[in-house]
Amino acid sequence: MTGVETLIAERSASATAVIPDIAHYLLNAGGKRIRPLITVAAARLCGYEGQGHLALAAAVEFIHTATLLHDDVVDDSALRRGKAPANQVWGNAQSVLVGDFLFARAFMLMVDAGSMRALHVLSRAAAVIAEGEVRQLAAARQIATTRDQYMDIIAAKTAALFAAAAQVSPILAGASPRVEAGLEIYGRELGLAFQLVDDALDYGGVAEALGKNTGDDFREGKITLPVALAMEAGGEAERSFWARTMGEGVQGPEDFDEAVARLKRHGALDATLEQARAHAARAVEALDAAPDNVWSQSLAALAEFVVERAY
Amino acid sequence: MTGVETLIAERSASATAVIPDIAHYLLNAGGKRIRPLITVAAARLCGYEGQGHLALAAAVEFIHTATLLHDDVVDDSALRRGKAPANQVWGNAQSVLVGDFLFARAFMLMVDAGSMRALHVLSRAAAVIAEGEVRQLAAARQIATTRDQYMDIIAAKTAALFAAAAQVSPILAGASPRVEAGLEIYGRELGLAFQLVDDALDYGGVAEALGKNTGDDFREGKITLPVALAMEAGGEAERSFWARTMGEGVQGPEDFDEAVARLKRHGALDATLEQARAHAARAVEALDAAPDNVWSQSLAALAEFVVERAY
Repeated sequence: MTGVETLIAERSASATAVIPDIAHYLLNAGGKRIRPLITVAAARLCGYEGQGHLALAAAVEFIHTATLLHDDVVDDSALRRGKAPANQVWGNAQSVLVGDFLFARAFMLMVDAGSMRALHVLSRAAAVIAEGEVRQLAAARQIATTRDQYMDIIAAKTAALFAAAAQVSPILAGASPRVEAGLEIYGRELGLAFQLVDDALDYGGVAEALGKNTGDDFREGKITLPVALAMEAGGEAERSFWARTMGEGVQGPEDFDEAVARLKRHGALDATLEQARAHAARAVEALDAAPDNVWSQSLAALAEFVVERAY
Repeated sequence: MTGVETLIAERSASATAVIPDIAHYLLNAGGKRIRPLITVAAARLCGYEGQGHLALAAAVEFIHTATLLHDDVVDDSALRRGKAPANQVWGNAQSVLVGDFLFARAFMLMVDAGSMRALHVLSRAAAVIAEGEVRQLAAARQIATTRDQYMDIIAAKTAALFAAAAQVSPILAGASPRVEAGLEIYGRELGLAFQLVDDALDYGGVAEALGKNTGDDFREGKITLPVALAMEAGGEAERSFWARTMGEGVQGPEDFDEAVARLKRHGALDATLEQARAHAARAVEALDAAPDNVWSQSLAALAEFVVERAY
């Protein structure tokens, strides 16, 4: 990952001073680099010996960082990686433009890697992410959002980039279609698991460890799986609580604790994590298509870690 | 251009309904399609007979449209192409996300065209545009902004995409480095002329024809060449007017008319258009490197048109 970090530092540079300021504010905020890690490990797993995977891994992290900068403008979160969101420090305009800059630089990195098919996969993922974010925005405060709609949104906004991060490496390595398909599924399932855990943690009270306030989804009226499950389980009385707090956005100081209590009463957080575990297991299974070596074992361990961080 | 229009319609489609709504709101608002026109004419000029130039032309228009959507969030303009800006209709969040979607789709189009060098040129242009926009934002309300700083900003935010739009076609056609360099200069000089004319028109009172209110730059404190020239010419008394209205943003109802009168008194609008004419002439000269045919004549006529629309 040292090579990836070097590229991230080099390619986020700009003579326009505020750009590296904002880019590094987020890039150096202690993010887990989980997406580029997938790209690097998947390349090694496939026996790739060139340097192109480093450029693709950095490109994946730039796309992710650009979406975080744009999400800050969209979401109005209280904390991002334990710090005030960039748009609260520099304003919406700068956050939008520096996101655009990183997005463009991501494509320059992909050009360096030299694979047109990898470019296709990552540019399609970027379009799908934007579609997912738009659908998430349209679903905000819609308490009738179903499990299926929720899964469709997270497949687009989160799992698509995980899938692309894993798929580009076998493409670059010239691996077989079977290995490529296996790694694509690995990434997609891992992305679903990751987002499910994230959404459970938003009601889980481990703010310091995560660098993200709990309660963001509740405050923003983002209907995630725990809430959808509680409403399914709870009937009309349950429904009116969520309709007021998340649908209408009328929230008192006790309501978040009450929400957490209701989710626990219905076992909705456990059920969400159970689903996350199932997707992580499918991710590990999909690695059967790939060679069994220290890198496939690392990717399997990563899938464990993604779920374990919830406990 | 019919092929380009078909691609623009097809590739802005999405099952997420609000995306085509917003994209078409802007794409079908009567924009001049000047950038994709350059790409198409330059490809024909070079004798290119494939279809890839249509994808690149549509990609160029998507990048331009994405930057307009993001500019609306950044700028707070009153009108865009004669209509309320998309962010006033759908909100900032949707404008940011649909811009991202079009940006990603632009790269998918470039992949279809199949030229890695064209991808490099366009992705670099996209990064330079973002840098230019950031510098423009930093220069807002800075009345000490010099001519050179202004020219540096418009070279990045406007001329870089014109240059790339012209350069990708000889690349695709496999034209000689001399032809490619000539067309790149043509695009860059035309872009400078275009922006200078735009900035003069913002004080020029032809709002209906342009679909853009005059006075946006004045209201937003964007120091363009006319203002920089008036301040150079006018001494301390002149300076205090611009310092109050554009530097501090303290504006009364008569101030815009007063600003126009001052620009005219110093011949600043004429001088700006004179510079635009000089850049357009350099654009036409640069075509000497390319074959003389009906397409080079069209590109020369386009350069005339860009300047003539100011009168």
